[in-house]
Amino acid sequence: MVRTNGRKIFEAVGADAVFTTPEYLKRYVTGFLTEGGFVISDEKGTTMYTDARYTEAAEKRLQGTEVKVAETDRFDNSPAALLKKYRTVGVPFELTSYPEYKKLEGLGLTLVDSMPAFRAAMAVKNDWELNAIARACDIAEEGFLRLLPEIREGMTETEVAALLEYNMRRLGAYSTSFDTIVAFGAHAAVPHHETGDTKLKFGDEILIDFGCKVDGYCSDITRTFLFGDDGKHGEFKKAYAAVLAAHELVKEKLVSGMTGNDGDAIARDYLEKAGYGKFFTHSLGHGIGLNIHEFPFVRKGGQDVLADGMVFSDEPGVYLAGEYGVRIEDTITLSGGKVKSFMHKTDRNLVVL
Amino acid sequence: MVRTNGRKIFEAVGADAVFTTPEYLKRYVTGFLTEGGFVISDEKGTTMYTDARYTEAAEKRLQGTEVKVAETDRFDNSPAALLKKYRTVGVPFELTSYPEYKKLEGLGLTLVDSMPAFRAAMAVKNDWELNAIARACDIAEEGFLRLLPEIREGMTETEVAALLEYNMRRLGAYSTSFDTIVAFGAHAAVPHHETGDTKLKFGDEILIDFGCKVDGYCSDITRTFLFGDDGKHGEFKKAYAAVLAAHELVKEKLVSGMTGNDGDAIARDYLEKAGYGKFFTHSLGHGIGLNIHEFPFVRKGGQDVLADGMVFSDEPGVYLAGEYGVRIEDTITLSGGKVKSFMHKTDRNLVVL
Repeated sequence: MVRTNGRKIFEAVGADAVFTTPEYLKRYVTGFLTEGGFVISDEKGTTMYTDARYTEAAEKRLQGTEVKVAETDRFDNSPAALLKKYRTVGVPFELTSYPEYKKLEGLGLTLVDSMPAFRAAMAVKNDWELNAIARACDIAEEGFLRLLPEIREGMTETEVAALLEYNMRRLGAYSTSFDTIVAFGAHAAVPHHETGDTKLKFGDEILIDFGCKVDGYCSDITRTFLFGDDGKHGEFKKAYAAVLAAHELVKEKLVSGMTGNDGDAIARDYLEKAGYGKFFTHSLGHGIGLNIHEFPFVRKGGQDVLADGMVFSDEPGVYLAGEYGVRIEDTITLSGGKVKSFMHKTDRNLVVL
Repeated sequence: MVRTNGRKIFEAVGADAVFTTPEYLKRYVTGFLTEGGFVISDEKGTTMYTDARYTEAAEKRLQGTEVKVAETDRFDNSPAALLKKYRTVGVPFELTSYPEYKKLEGLGLTLVDSMPAFRAAMAVKNDWELNAIARACDIAEEGFLRLLPEIREGMTETEVAALLEYNMRRLGAYSTSFDTIVAFGAHAAVPHHETGDTKLKFGDEILIDFGCKVDGYCSDITRTFLFGDDGKHGEFKKAYAAVLAAHELVKEKLVSGMTGNDGDAIARDYLEKAGYGKFFTHSLGHGIGLNIHEFPFVRKGGQDVLADGMVFSDEPGVYLAGEYGVRIEDTITLSGGKVKSFMHKTDRNLVVL
């Protein structure tokens, strides 16, 4: 059964109606993925207005839920006609374009920002959502484990990515959760390296940042390892040990109630003391859900309060341009006040193939 | 060499500066894919403001182009500080949120809509862009041809999609251009079927709608075929012949200077006369470029004027709920006033495996 959140969002926003057009917010409200159209929730329930591409499948899937399906190409189903009966309407301000906002205002509506309600509701995952993320993480790890014995000298970054994505897909992933990053050698020093045609050589380090989607929910994981040890990786190994220690320290010390800044500082302080402070060039983590980057943000100065049920990444990294890069990332959640990782299968200790 | 379009957009907008934040517009201006940050173009040139994740790679790639790279985390590189020296600034209204628009207005700027300039520039592809799309189409077709002999009874829709995506990836695709649709049997009657766990049976029809990205540019193709002929496909075959005739008629009759409505009508009139009018439930086509759906739109009532260098889909379809669906789609362009398809390898006549 699809999980819908129309009632929850309607009550949290507190307007006469909530009008939703961005794809991932519509999906959160209705449990159903559509392109185009819009969703209106009011005290009577939620209606998804969509077109003929989706109506048949949506009606079947949403049967028995609070969500009704209607076609937008009917004469009387324009947003303007449907919304004019309300006084106050919730829309997500930061995802509402200036022209659209002005059009809605022009209908005589008082607009209320629905984004804080979505952000708060979506940040704390229910069991169904945690289960989807757990499966997305399990598939990612299993896909990675099946990749390792297939890696050969001379393969390109793209070929390694292709094989990993194929493994995840066959294991039941709907898609990747973002463009897979495979970086060989010094490419790993570029935190968002664009996977390319470079060929793998003996002794290269390999950094892979990847994830997949299950029921719309994302996983996110990074592993850094060696393709053979040519004896030239002394500095890399020191950095690896420091990043791993920072990664594990977060799992040990981060607790519910901390701010994003507090969480980030656990890893940042450790890496600073270890002499890697200025090489940890990004934040510790980001929320993960229907989006690969969402609330909460676990970063320096971040004031988001971390709470039970939130899901985010623990991904400290150290990058020395032209030399090496190390990032170790798990998707984690808070449960009973403490960190629980979704990753159980893959080694975080340095692997040498 | 990366192709940049900062100067072109700056001149077309005609403001003191153009301020760009949406990902695909930044990519069009700079030729480089980044998450976050912003781009400013003025009479002196274009600067991409980004963070440490991208600066090293961006500087390397953009060397020798009109685009400079700067870091956003420097104290003096906030958009507010950088923009206040201008009087008029171009931003894409429909992609600028209401709060962002108000913030920019609050700086005392006169805002000009940059979207028409982007839309017009991006719709007409240059040779470099046409070449990227041609490669994306070639990889899609080749990936499909390598898939066909691997299709077996009992495979799931997801497994077929996984194999096709793997083929495209190995052939050099950067990613899929959208979530691959694989529909078996009556699922093909759902124009945007969500690929799932249904297993293939002898006699099933198969509809596959897919594409990939090369250098950021998309391909889009749909093929409908039979997995064995169980003798029950009489109605399906009639519909197939009608859709194919409509698809080919578009290639023959559509010429530069027509509106989207004119183009759509070529297929729609034919299918109406053939008795399938009410089963052709979507528009004939959509523009294809850095986005899988962009200007121009080839639809009933559409007033976009089709011109040489534009790239769009020719995808008539007929859908009988619960029974069958047929869609035949090529990515096409206009050259010398006439249609040229990017698809050369795959058969459009009905294939029976």
